[in-house]
Amino acid sequence: MIDNPHYAQVTQGDFKLHDLGDLLLESGETLRGAKLAYRTLGRLNAEKSNAVLVTTWFSGTGKVMQDVYVGAGHALDPERYFIVIVDQLGGGVSSSPQNTPAPQAMAKFPRLSIGDDVQAQHRLLVDRFAIERLALVVGGSMGGQQVYEWAVRYPEMVERAAPIAATARISPHQRVFVDALKEAITSDPRWNGGWYASGLDVRDGMDRMARIVAVLGWSPQFYAEERWRSVLGMTSLDDFINGVMKAYFEPMDPNVLLSEMHKWQRADVSRHTGGDLAKALARISARTMIMPISHDQFFPPEECEADCALVPGALLRVIRSPEGHMGLNGFEPGYMAQVDRHLNALLAT
Amino acid sequence: MIDNPHYAQVTQGDFKLHDLGDLLLESGETLRGAKLAYRTLGRLNAEKSNAVLVTTWFSGTGKVMQDVYVGAGHALDPERYFIVIVDQLGGGVSSSPQNTPAPQAMAKFPRLSIGDDVQAQHRLLVDRFAIERLALVVGGSMGGQQVYEWAVRYPEMVERAAPIAATARISPHQRVFVDALKEAITSDPRWNGGWYASGLDVRDGMDRMARIVAVLGWSPQFYAEERWRSVLGMTSLDDFINGVMKAYFEPMDPNVLLSEMHKWQRADVSRHTGGDLAKALARISARTMIMPISHDQFFPPEECEADCALVPGALLRVIRSPEGHMGLNGFEPGYMAQVDRHLNALLAT
Repeated sequence: MIDNPHYAQVTQGDFKLHDLGDLLLESGETLRGAKLAYRTLGRLNAEKSNAVLVTTWFSGTGKVMQDVYVGAGHALDPERYFIVIVDQLGGGVSSSPQNTPAPQAMAKFPRLSIGDDVQAQHRLLVDRFAIERLALVVGGSMGGQQVYEWAVRYPEMVERAAPIAATARISPHQRVFVDALKEAITSDPRWNGGWYASGLDVRDGMDRMARIVAVLGWSPQFYAEERWRSVLGMTSLDDFINGVMKAYFEPMDPNVLLSEMHKWQRADVSRHTGGDLAKALARISARTMIMPISHDQFFPPEECEADCALVPGALLRVIRSPEGHMGLNGFEPGYMAQVDRHLNALLAT
Repeated sequence: MIDNPHYAQVTQGDFKLHDLGDLLLESGETLRGAKLAYRTLGRLNAEKSNAVLVTTWFSGTGKVMQDVYVGAGHALDPERYFIVIVDQLGGGVSSSPQNTPAPQAMAKFPRLSIGDDVQAQHRLLVDRFAIERLALVVGGSMGGQQVYEWAVRYPEMVERAAPIAATARISPHQRVFVDALKEAITSDPRWNGGWYASGLDVRDGMDRMARIVAVLGWSPQFYAEERWRSVLGMTSLDDFINGVMKAYFEPMDPNVLLSEMHKWQRADVSRHTGGDLAKALARISARTMIMPISHDQFFPPEECEADCALVPGALLRVIRSPEGHMGLNGFEPGYMAQVDRHLNALLAT
């Protein structure tokens, strides 16, 4: 176990851990003493009709969702909704490679799936809060993969679903991309098969991964217009690569990122229906609003549109953000205004 | 020096070496005893009006241009044209890191620019063949970067220009991408600062590079439709990554690829005009046909279209190939038919 302050309350703010006990995973393994990190904002009403579940993306935690997506003035307003933000399993804050004791520590941490996350979140909502219906499940990127999993797996429980910058099934192109990210880390000799004293030992591999993320994470237009200058305040392309991309990942744990990548690469709701995506998405009864980002190279709008055609009654709302996938972080002025407008419209139905 | 059979006649077929003597480079360095590899097909007519120059791309050599783009039935028909195919400097066949003696061998091989290539090619054409006008300069990718350099630098000499899947100035996005490729090789401890006994020693880094090339070299549609199966005859995605991507690069020399990447990242005709791209492209007097590939993620069609708007009288002809940039290799049935049709139209003017 590694005591990494990046995943502690000093960095992540106030969160709670829900004890899941021994969690039987899709892989057949059991994660012993599993804990799901969550935070709540607002109050659950008497009818328990105002619960909103917010999920997290690759490398992101509950804190960024709280800071960027939730609050007064946003659609996800704690004055109106009881908002439950969950940290994905393996993401560093919930049970993860670096915070799980032997014999499941570090490289021996079990491989997870998006389905395991949704199962764990379901238990939190039912066991801890006795919630039977969710007014909305919303999340971006890997968080959006969890939204699709929720809507397909528990259709009766999900009133509304809003996957942002995500698809219901990972594309082969993205699997190839994530393989390149994984290899950047695992090829660092100091990663040492997942056994290291500190994530900082694996800095070389993490830096290489950060550079590859930069290739698809931001759009060609972001680079052409030097938006790292106008939007992020960096002074040169190198300054951006070092001061934003490498700096962002540096405090994180390599095995955590690898654990998340394993899930990311395998997200696919059609595994519930023998590989038939249309059949899986036809199960969805939630009012679904699918929100691709205009310049996204991870989950291109046309792939999201193809999902939309398979979800009964789904609406497509493309969020314009020249940043590309990383626009999810809300850097772009006007990004959250678009998200809020669409979510307000969805919540009003 | 390394005797790598990949760059010898046993692999590359019949080529000649033109002795350039000491070549003063744009960087200020001098490449001593520089040699330019070339092959010719067809006959130069009495008026010397039928010369066509064909350039090469990253990792590609004169042989692939000869095999795929030139021959009876193609626009580049040796029955009609005197076709000079040149191997780029640093590309393994012309003077390159692995075939240049000390003190400029291996890691000490000078850094080159696209301008150095064009200077060397100009000397070959003038000194060896006394050619004063080129009926056409054509090439793809880095070969297309050389086409732009020719048209801007020697406008009076270039009657027609056909850059395929290339832009006149490298995009910042592509610079970031190529940095990731370079780092994949240079982070391999066995690359050893450029000093290795055999390129095969650097197999790990080369394999990593091959995987990253796969991310942008082929289109998302190529992966979604499993075109590695229908077009390339591979049996699985892993089979494709290993049997096509890694296998393709494995016989090559790591320093050669790094030398080419250095040029690729810096290709920019606007360095002739103080950074003013419009001014540089306005110099072109050649009849120019700009041919992006529809699904290209290296040189996206919209970037080529922006160049087209700056070249006087240029025509844009988008070549449809769902493969993406790698479509250049002519795997796609119908790819060469499109190229030939457009080149025939250009040559008829």
